[in-house]
Amino acid sequence: MPFEKILLVNMPESVMNSQYWDRLHSLAKKTVSLPKDSPDILKEIADTDCLLVGFATPITKEHMDVAENLKYIGTLAIAYHKIDTAYARERSIPVTNIAGYCTESVAEFVIAAILNEIRQLDEGKRRSIAENYNFVGMSATEIRGRVFGVFGLGNIGKRTAELAKGFGADVRYWSRNRKEDCEAMGIRYEDKDALLQDSDFISINFAHTPETNRFFDEAALSRIKRGAIVVNTVPMETVDITALEKRLAKVDMTFIFDHSDEMRQEDIEKLSKYKNCIVYPPIAFISIEARKNKQELFIGNIENFLNGRPTNVVN
Amino acid sequence: MPFEKILLVNMPESVMNSQYWDRLHSLAKKTVSLPKDSPDILKEIADTDCLLVGFATPITKEHMDVAENLKYIGTLAIAYHKIDTAYARERSIPVTNIAGYCTESVAEFVIAAILNEIRQLDEGKRRSIAENYNFVGMSATEIRGRVFGVFGLGNIGKRTAELAKGFGADVRYWSRNRKEDCEAMGIRYEDKDALLQDSDFISINFAHTPETNRFFDEAALSRIKRGAIVVNTVPMETVDITALEKRLAKVDMTFIFDHSDEMRQEDIEKLSKYKNCIVYPPIAFISIEARKNKQELFIGNIENFLNGRPTNVVN
Repeated sequence: MPFEKILLVNMPESVMNSQYWDRLHSLAKKTVSLPKDSPDILKEIADTDCLLVGFATPITKEHMDVAENLKYIGTLAIAYHKIDTAYARERSIPVTNIAGYCTESVAEFVIAAILNEIRQLDEGKRRSIAENYNFVGMSATEIRGRVFGVFGLGNIGKRTAELAKGFGADVRYWSRNRKEDCEAMGIRYEDKDALLQDSDFISINFAHTPETNRFFDEAALSRIKRGAIVVNTVPMETVDITALEKRLAKVDMTFIFDHSDEMRQEDIEKLSKYKNCIVYPPIAFISIEARKNKQELFIGNIENFLNGRPTNVVN
Repeated sequence: MPFEKILLVNMPESVMNSQYWDRLHSLAKKTVSLPKDSPDILKEIADTDCLLVGFATPITKEHMDVAENLKYIGTLAIAYHKIDTAYARERSIPVTNIAGYCTESVAEFVIAAILNEIRQLDEGKRRSIAENYNFVGMSATEIRGRVFGVFGLGNIGKRTAELAKGFGADVRYWSRNRKEDCEAMGIRYEDKDALLQDSDFISINFAHTPETNRFFDEAALSRIKRGAIVVNTVPMETVDITALEKRLAKVDMTFIFDHSDEMRQEDIEKLSKYKNCIVYPPIAFISIEARKNKQELFIGNIENFLNGRPTNVVN
């Protein structure tokens, strides 16, 4: 029983490979695709029964009120904060996401970014390229035995904690809710201030929500241990940029993040002046495995709904 | 009961911190230090009861025959191939090494070096420095789920295998002897040729011995999978350099190694021409933790011998 009409919003062809587009097209009699802010959305949504949207695409009560036949909303993202999921629920419309698609990709990136710094791999390569194979003046530390603090113990935070545990780190966490399964693995809960003070490495893994907005404020940033390395793979709105600048200016800790499109140009310009602020393009989530998972989950969610076994419903 | 005379050969002051030198000096009435090839060794060794030598320092039957009172030989290294340990054994002189001092340091380096390549961290940093935060054209893969082949399952090989297992890799090994404890952990034995063909990542961790000299010959190198990444943290004498050049020229795999002082200048020049050959200074073993372990083990071995509980005896 396929859909009558799939409406795609903010899903350019490049987001999926052709085999997934083929699977998608087989799920509806008709498919219409519109860019993010198209004025035609309200018109096209009217007879849509399946609405599929890209990252951070607003879907409001107004949209849903027009869409009398709407039966399913799927987003090709983990975040769904721009979708009025509560209203969708009132209308009995399931909203699905692709939770977990990049868990491994991001967790491995966090470890990669930390190891890159503590082993001074850039300096090592620079020396070798200059035909200087002397290690004098270089230094290295290990992950083993150091305190590894994870803020936010969802899928990605938990996997990052597991990887750090594999290295023999003393892994601790702060999360909105206590996680007994992780504590049973020896991952200890600490309150925010203690975790900031104790951690040699910090991985920031909670979602950006009103509660985590500027979670790392001046007081928090000033508590971070001298010499600590912080890796942030979530939106930089979780960090007070002015306070971060102030802490970076002390040159006594390293802050690593992967830049996101949503970051303000003036903020990135401020931070990239500091040598102890390491910026990457948004490459934490781009592994080929993650890209495959993303498409599989997205299409699988639609197929599962049609087969009466909906998956990854968030509302 | 301390020693009468400690003779140090090839152990410049820089190899240990002052607190360890203090501990060392407290273990003998007298301490004499000589450089590696000093002509005075035969003279000074005559009344020595404790002989301590740096990396790759030859100690022969001739030396021992002069040293009538010799009771102990310690080397500040894992390798002891330049010491005639069999003859020392005949004379009931224990030879000790510092096995295991850099296990963690090297194992973490192997993972660091692999992650650095598969996450394209250098390219990521280059782009960010050029204020290009676009990830288009970049790619990444994960360790999870890939075949991770370890050649040589001693201390370092085993720990490397464990770390890879923590990432969820399919870890397999080849070693001179089967290791049942590792097999019980799900680390599968494969023969040399199969492991070369199957591995996405290869870590070389066996000691350089006559049997492993040029172990990676032309036939072996040609079997390595397209796209594989090989990390060698043991002497490059384990690899046929001419055959490696030939394989590197195909630009279908990556070979990473940390240069050692013993490598011939012409060999390093040959290899460093290839962009798919990543060379580091010898930084795999230099973590501050390893440096501390090294000194602790070395001095601890001497103290333990004097206390009648010798440790790390290799003969």
